[in-house]
Amino acid sequence: MKRPTIADIARTAGVSKGAVSYALNGRPGVSEPTRRRIMAIAEELGWAPSSAARALSDGRAGAIGLVVDRPARVLGVEPFFMQLISGIQAALAGSPTALLLQVSDHQEAELATYRRWWAERRVDGTLLVDLQERDRRVDLVQELGLPAVVLGGPAGVAGLPCVWTDDGVAVAEVLEYLSTLGHRRIVRVAGPEEFLHTQARSAAFTECAARLGLDQTRIVHTDYSGEAGARVARRLLASAEAPTALLFDNDLMAVAAVAVAQELGIAVPGQLSVVAWDDSVLCRLVHPALTAVRRPIAEYGVAAVTLLQQVLAGQRPDSVRTADPILVPRASTGPAPR
Amino acid sequence: MKRPTIADIARTAGVSKGAVSYALNGRPGVSEPTRRRIMAIAEELGWAPSSAARALSDGRAGAIGLVVDRPARVLGVEPFFMQLISGIQAALAGSPTALLLQVSDHQEAELATYRRWWAERRVDGTLLVDLQERDRRVDLVQELGLPAVVLGGPAGVAGLPCVWTDDGVAVAEVLEYLSTLGHRRIVRVAGPEEFLHTQARSAAFTECAARLGLDQTRIVHTDYSGEAGARVARRLLASAEAPTALLFDNDLMAVAAVAVAQELGIAVPGQLSVVAWDDSVLCRLVHPALTAVRRPIAEYGVAAVTLLQQVLAGQRPDSVRTADPILVPRASTGPAPR
Repeated sequence: MKRPTIADIARTAGVSKGAVSYALNGRPGVSEPTRRRIMAIAEELGWAPSSAARALSDGRAGAIGLVVDRPARVLGVEPFFMQLISGIQAALAGSPTALLLQVSDHQEAELATYRRWWAERRVDGTLLVDLQERDRRVDLVQELGLPAVVLGGPAGVAGLPCVWTDDGVAVAEVLEYLSTLGHRRIVRVAGPEEFLHTQARSAAFTECAARLGLDQTRIVHTDYSGEAGARVARRLLASAEAPTALLFDNDLMAVAAVAVAQELGIAVPGQLSVVAWDDSVLCRLVHPALTAVRRPIAEYGVAAVTLLQQVLAGQRPDSVRTADPILVPRASTGPAPR
Repeated sequence: MKRPTIADIARTAGVSKGAVSYALNGRPGVSEPTRRRIMAIAEELGWAPSSAARALSDGRAGAIGLVVDRPARVLGVEPFFMQLISGIQAALAGSPTALLLQVSDHQEAELATYRRWWAERRVDGTLLVDLQERDRRVDLVQELGLPAVVLGGPAGVAGLPCVWTDDGVAVAEVLEYLSTLGHRRIVRVAGPEEFLHTQARSAAFTECAARLGLDQTRIVHTDYSGEAGARVARRLLASAEAPTALLFDNDLMAVAAVAVAQELGIAVPGQLSVVAWDDSVLCRLVHPALTAVRRPIAEYGVAAVTLLQQVLAGQRPDSVRTADPILVPRASTGPAPR
């Protein structure tokens, strides 16, 4: 059974191809009973307008794009993207719009992908993640006229609507919690410095530490990989004034750090408190279960798709701030050692 | 800067739209110097044929499909799919073919997706994963005439080329290794019973246990979630004749089981040996690092895309068996307790 064509419908209905075309396009030229009969046969045969034909007629590609610019190796273990994709799929469910996904090696390749997608009308719009300072993607989509929505704070992306949470709220909540537990030597083990969301969290960390009078805090940058988390933890825990609390920018590095502590015979949380961000199944499964910052990631995906649909409908929507992240205390945090 | 159109090229070149169309389509009607001038201007303006126009002319959608039929929650932490996607992307790199990804709730929705994709010419072909016995997808793609390649063993999918590894080789290697370490009470904590790859591993497990005279082995089925892994481990470890070795069908359940053992004060590997399948970053990061079965997952993606491209080119390729999985012994396995 091949794809049904207008010719198949015409043959089955015993009418001309022209009559089928009139009926399917809701144009005059066929009687109402014939139109209904043709529609019923078309449905029975599983006919649908080809996306190619539709894209030529209404100009829509029927797909939105997402380029993920991190090593697949990191992606595979970090739940963020699959949660996000799950939210995107939830928002697209029931609509004929599909998600076109590309994993990219570096930003140059990512820029080329947007150019090609747009030139070839493969997508109607795109989502942008992991924005950097003076991000070339922001310029490119505006130059191309490619509709885009940013996942991340509104700083530095003038002209594009954003979906974001106020990460500063959660950074403050974590620092106040650790400070109350008596911790002073606290290290934030962050993601890549060039990401705007990394910078926003770091700024909040520094500001809040100053406000709380925590003068022995530090920030260290990594590439998000578990190996980097383990390496940083090993180095920090072996240092003279070892930290008593670590705040990680993902769950994988936090898991790796707890393993390093176990390997070194350092009790978690007796001698070291560990906080992960984002919360995930992994945080709940390991022993001790990890205290973590939870963001509504799937909700980001839903909100981003909704915003993009508004942009595609010709509206100019405001940015959307989703619910604040919350701190979920579990077994990996406790009072600072005396 | 909008997408350049044929009209833009015509205006810039000072020729008619018809002349541009002749030139771009390599048809007679324009002189060779004019054709070269038009091509140069088209390139300069960043013109590319829209995928819609191309799909109508050469019948190609320029995309391949992948429907993933597992809860996004599990996906987010299980590296298999992102590794697979990474391999697919590697194989597609440099080609104008994109990956159309859909996360699906259940097989009914998955079947509807294939129908829609094919009817609307969104994809040229598709990859099928997690095949079940008498899988309705196999019938559907053949009925539709939708080119498809199966990731998984060749059993039960007559007519479709497959990419597969012989999991039986690795099952035997694991059982021989555990048997040599003195283990007799060994439980295989498997994925869903309905998957063909689960059945293939289980058959190999039962056959090999019989051959080695291991008469206290068992198989338990789960939904792959870490929670299920923890629950099964808790129940097994609390039973009268508790197993001394557990072989899991993914990495997440194995990590959860080690956490349960730690919670119960059961030493790994002193009192309990744990083996994961597939190997992942996570297996290397936890403490103790997990002994695991490693398969060439990214290579599956590359091989599957290559096979699908051959099918699309009108060939009838044979199935491809990739390298055998290997056992990577780490710190989570040791001699059986006396």
